[in-house]
Amino acid sequence: MHLTREDLKKMHRVRRLNLINGISGIKPANLIGTKSKSGIPNVSIFSSIVHIGSDPGLIGFITRQSGDVVRNTYNNICQTGHYTINHIHESFIENAHYTSAKFDAEVSEFEQCYLTEEYLYKFPAPFVGESKLKFGLKLVEEVNIKSNGTKMIIGQVQEIILPENCLDDKGYLRLDKLSDVGIGGLSSYYNLRRIKSFPVAKVGELPEFGGER
Amino acid sequence: MHLTREDLKKMHRVRRLNLINGISGIKPANLIGTKSKSGIPNVSIFSSIVHIGSDPGLIGFITRQSGDVVRNTYNNICQTGHYTINHIHESFIENAHYTSAKFDAEVSEFEQCYLTEEYLYKFPAPFVGESKLKFGLKLVEEVNIKSNGTKMIIGQVQEIILPENCLDDKGYLRLDKLSDVGIGGLSSYYNLRRIKSFPVAKVGELPEFGGER
Repeated sequence: MHLTREDLKKMHRVRRLNLINGISGIKPANLIGTKSKSGIPNVSIFSSIVHIGSDPGLIGFITRQSGDVVRNTYNNICQTGHYTINHIHESFIENAHYTSAKFDAEVSEFEQCYLTEEYLYKFPAPFVGESKLKFGLKLVEEVNIKSNGTKMIIGQVQEIILPENCLDDKGYLRLDKLSDVGIGGLSSYYNLRRIKSFPVAKVGELPEFGGER
Repeated sequence: MHLTREDLKKMHRVRRLNLINGISGIKPANLIGTKSKSGIPNVSIFSSIVHIGSDPGLIGFITRQSGDVVRNTYNNICQTGHYTINHIHESFIENAHYTSAKFDAEVSEFEQCYLTEEYLYKFPAPFVGESKLKFGLKLVEEVNIKSNGTKMIIGQVQEIILPENCLDDKGYLRLDKLSDVGIGGLSSYYNLRRIKSFPVAKVGELPEFGGER
């Protein structure tokens, strides 16, 4: 099946949305926790979280600020400068999914979606109690994307909370031991089974690929 | 286990790299195909591909341009304005992984890693023959990330090639039917099993969460 740019333009809006949201492959499933200056907490699901750098630890996500839609996560981060990212596990995918409904700013998605608002180590933004791997970030950069008016919000990792037994002996995270999930498109959830880890790839140490593809 | 910013600073470089590369959760596994102006093809694995928008279809990825490391993918995209993104399936994860070795610019990673260089529908950049879902992009924006000198490269989707049977009746992609994989950290590969799809979340249509978390 071959679709051109013209086919995409003519496609029904919802089908295009589903297709284009899916073609980048599996996406990470995280909840972002924030609090407004006036103290109202917010938690919302994001699939656009992306690694930017390791030293210092920088993580980005994409947010749309279009028209009359109020983006509480973005507004709260601008107001307080802090937020949390919390992995979603298989046990609460439904609760996590429904945080994407358009709740009013004065409503707590934690309460509405039965997720636990948790404050740890004096970090100013709420963590998700159900999440085993979570980290607190400080806003460091807001990047405007001219092509469609979205923004990438970049934060520096301040605190990481994780269960010790999700790290293997090399310090690699075992996402399967966390029962982490991934998101396909806008609303499909996948669980993960680890296949294999490879060493860092070096030109002089390529495996023999003969007939393997 | 609780790690502060100071703990991260003091951590061994490789352990920090492994940890911070993993904490965003599962990442998409894709190969980017390019060709230099002088005709040398390149293919390289990327886990930082992120959805930016659906209409038009815009996809970003992060690239580092630091020091003396030549980034052939980036250079080729600047030279020609076109590139391809190709899903990685379980059958060729090892071939795909080893494209991350630092090959010289005049070497074809397709040849070195036994992947098939494929040209389709007169698109100017090479696709990966082994990949069932792949799309061609035109460079539209290059965004500088000041915090660490990386860039986000944004392309507009021009052509999509996919097997018809990987779409369900709602137009959702079935990543499991494609045998797609995800990446954890720098070098762990996971396969995907679909758990569930939920409807678009609406405030008036929340499920009953009682005791579910």
